[in-house]
Amino acid sequence: MEITFIAMILFLVHVQLIQNYSYITKYIEVPLDHFSFTNSYMFKLRYFVNDSYWSDCGPIFFYTGNEGNIETFAENSGFMWELAPAFRALLVFAEHRYYGESLPFGNASFSNPKRLGYLTSSQALADYVYLLQYLGKYCKKENPVIAFGGSYGGMLSAWLRMKYPSSVWGAVASSAPIWQFQGLVSCEIFNKIITFVFDISSLHKCPKIIKRSWSAIRVVTSTSSGRRWLSTDWKLCKALTTPEDIHTLTDWLEEVYGNLAMANYPYETDFIVPLPAHPVKVFCDRLFCSTSSEPEFLLHQLGKALSVYTNYTGNTRCIDVSQSPNGSLGDIGWDFQACTEMIMPMCSGDLDMFENESWNFTKYAEDCYKKWKVGVRRADSVVLEYGGKDLKTTSNIIFSNGLLDPWSGGGVLNDASDSVLAVVMPDVAHHLDLRASNPADPSSVRNARKFYIRVISEWLQKYYKEH
Amino acid sequence: MEITFIAMILFLVHVQLIQNYSYITKYIEVPLDHFSFTNSYMFKLRYFVNDSYWSDCGPIFFYTGNEGNIETFAENSGFMWELAPAFRALLVFAEHRYYGESLPFGNASFSNPKRLGYLTSSQALADYVYLLQYLGKYCKKENPVIAFGGSYGGMLSAWLRMKYPSSVWGAVASSAPIWQFQGLVSCEIFNKIITFVFDISSLHKCPKIIKRSWSAIRVVTSTSSGRRWLSTDWKLCKALTTPEDIHTLTDWLEEVYGNLAMANYPYETDFIVPLPAHPVKVFCDRLFCSTSSEPEFLLHQLGKALSVYTNYTGNTRCIDVSQSPNGSLGDIGWDFQACTEMIMPMCSGDLDMFENESWNFTKYAEDCYKKWKVGVRRADSVVLEYGGKDLKTTSNIIFSNGLLDPWSGGGVLNDASDSVLAVVMPDVAHHLDLRASNPADPSSVRNARKFYIRVISEWLQKYYKEH
Repeated sequence: MEITFIAMILFLVHVQLIQNYSYITKYIEVPLDHFSFTNSYMFKLRYFVNDSYWSDCGPIFFYTGNEGNIETFAENSGFMWELAPAFRALLVFAEHRYYGESLPFGNASFSNPKRLGYLTSSQALADYVYLLQYLGKYCKKENPVIAFGGSYGGMLSAWLRMKYPSSVWGAVASSAPIWQFQGLVSCEIFNKIITFVFDISSLHKCPKIIKRSWSAIRVVTSTSSGRRWLSTDWKLCKALTTPEDIHTLTDWLEEVYGNLAMANYPYETDFIVPLPAHPVKVFCDRLFCSTSSEPEFLLHQLGKALSVYTNYTGNTRCIDVSQSPNGSLGDIGWDFQACTEMIMPMCSGDLDMFENESWNFTKYAEDCYKKWKVGVRRADSVVLEYGGKDLKTTSNIIFSNGLLDPWSGGGVLNDASDSVLAVVMPDVAHHLDLRASNPADPSSVRNARKFYIRVISEWLQKYYKEH
Repeated sequence: MEITFIAMILFLVHVQLIQNYSYITKYIEVPLDHFSFTNSYMFKLRYFVNDSYWSDCGPIFFYTGNEGNIETFAENSGFMWELAPAFRALLVFAEHRYYGESLPFGNASFSNPKRLGYLTSSQALADYVYLLQYLGKYCKKENPVIAFGGSYGGMLSAWLRMKYPSSVWGAVASSAPIWQFQGLVSCEIFNKIITFVFDISSLHKCPKIIKRSWSAIRVVTSTSSGRRWLSTDWKLCKALTTPEDIHTLTDWLEEVYGNLAMANYPYETDFIVPLPAHPVKVFCDRLFCSTSSEPEFLLHQLGKALSVYTNYTGNTRCIDVSQSPNGSLGDIGWDFQACTEMIMPMCSGDLDMFENESWNFTKYAEDCYKKWKVGVRRADSVVLEYGGKDLKTTSNIIFSNGLLDPWSGGGVLNDASDSVLAVVMPDVAHHLDLRASNPADPSSVRNARKFYIRVISEWLQKYYKEH
């Protein structure tokens, strides 16, 4: 009987047509501060609902929004849409406070720490619990809630289950680096994985060239004519002038490489920015002819290769390296989060394609203070709040990771218990599994999705048996 | 082998001499607000440590301080002191923020919601986690932490395990009414249990007389001469004048009856206030001759009976009914907590010894706003934060309750799982089990303590096996 139920769900998902992502936009007033009574300020949190598949008070599939407009996540989490009809689920996508339209103080939300300081994961989780309780009132009987999320959203979905198990029955945390924090994993792992991705996408050629490019940049930009040349050759919006500009450029480059690895999907996408299929391979292919030892030649080729990322649409007029290359993701809010709570130690060294850089928390905190006027108390507040590597006391969580995702280094790659399960996909980038099915999907992702359906079905059966 | 270990512990506890409660007072700087970055204010949280039994990094027995000076709890939790030598445990008693000396803004801490608003259970739990991490650094290997607490302190110890299972391995939550919140238990249960305690302590006589006393108070205080007479007869510090004064008096009386039931211990104590053994029986004995239907006579006898509570030492010169009768417990802070987060619906009716009073949240919230200038958003924030009656996903908690404790109505009286265990003591008042052993202890408490020792030993064995 149980096997039949799961088989039926699998069949229903299989025959499901590709969805149009249609939803109703709603808002709920939530408290600015769930954990004190110093003020009673409320603000509007945005969320999307699709109830067209929901019947007889089926489960709620709840996306725990992360650092961006909720549209981005609603439209890049096709797996949830594909599941909904078979499970007769209500689809809810909740926007994270301080992103998209969910700005507690409108455009003034980022003006100072008094206003921005409520941007924390704990407050976001409490928003979601608040919303879920409200949604629960729609239904006579209680609905099981399954949280979904990718990346930081996946961390939130796992933490939601860990901290509020009465509100959330299970969580699918895709590419959630909940261990990318002080003392839990080594700081170079992220950059090592990026290097690995570029390496296997290019028959081991690309990282060597990129590694050389850093000194080429130093050499070329050491003269004012070189800086002018590079600014023109790369079509930078603002010409490189000061040493600070060079620093900004190299930071930007590092971020682009990370994003290329993350979004190294087997088909064309428009998640972070518009990208071709296998963008790392495309990038490296364009770089290949850069075997000349001439710095200018290397950089010219690198500039061409970068346009895979910066100008896949062909519409980009100039490149603004002072802006985060994160496109649709909210960089202001995330920069604040990374400076306060989400402090993820990063470093690079001889074993990767980046310039050597050690992790220096003191300097990091100083820089953050300059930017945000917030004193960072400690690097490990996430570890303290969510318990570090201890997952023994929670349950009903799937942690999935693609090994080609740089964030998998901070992910959970082994089962922690019978019901805290790790799914590892060797040939997959950042939360590809949460996206809609695609003919180009590798079998590892197809199998993972089938596994999720089976596990979610089992969770729900257990729920209905117990309630 | 395991049974031998437990038997040894039981033996060691048995031969343990009665302790002197000696401790070192320490302070730790903790963040005022653990859940936002709007300020970086830190304040000194007080805690007591006794490491004289601690060796080889044994467990930490951690009292989660509740609404009062931490001395009160350190000196009324003798069970922990009796356990420490056998378990070679470090004893820690942490003071709850906004009580005792742990005032974030000194004497100005209660001046307005901007300062007082950080008095919430979530912030208190985060203080304890912060302190525990600091304590953990004393030791090379990680120490298992067992939280202990009584009443609200018991709620905190259970919630600490539920929310921070990586910081706390197990919890003994004595007389912790974690379900005394909206929608979880009926609002009259507290007063029904008080009535039951007075009933069985007096061969069913006392509640009838008390029930009659309310109308006697109304009749007598309806004239100014009656108010004068009662004020003198009861030695009130401030003569009754206004209807508001009468209301204050009856509120105070209700609280005294509740406290008498809570502290209805089988031997003389000085916990809330100094009291004789079996204070409810002593109280009722003094009331017995009040069979006359004369209101003044009844009230005169009631005044005499009340002196069991108000003047057991014989040193009280007058009774100040405008002050909470809670003696050593911090009434200002608790009043704020009861008005914001710890909203426990209470009512009384025909089946108890109190005047009829329904639960009216709107009025309650209005009164709270008048007092504290804090808008109470909702009555069920505790239910939302801690998950209501759902205890299936937590583990390693003992909930103990005496059925003669009015708070047992909101307590956990049945096992929730293999490791969330309920201990019910039929003939016991408010967290008697946490107190030091006493020859007058009923066998239910003695057996309960043996059971705790066995369970804690099992928890610790499991911990050492897994770590």
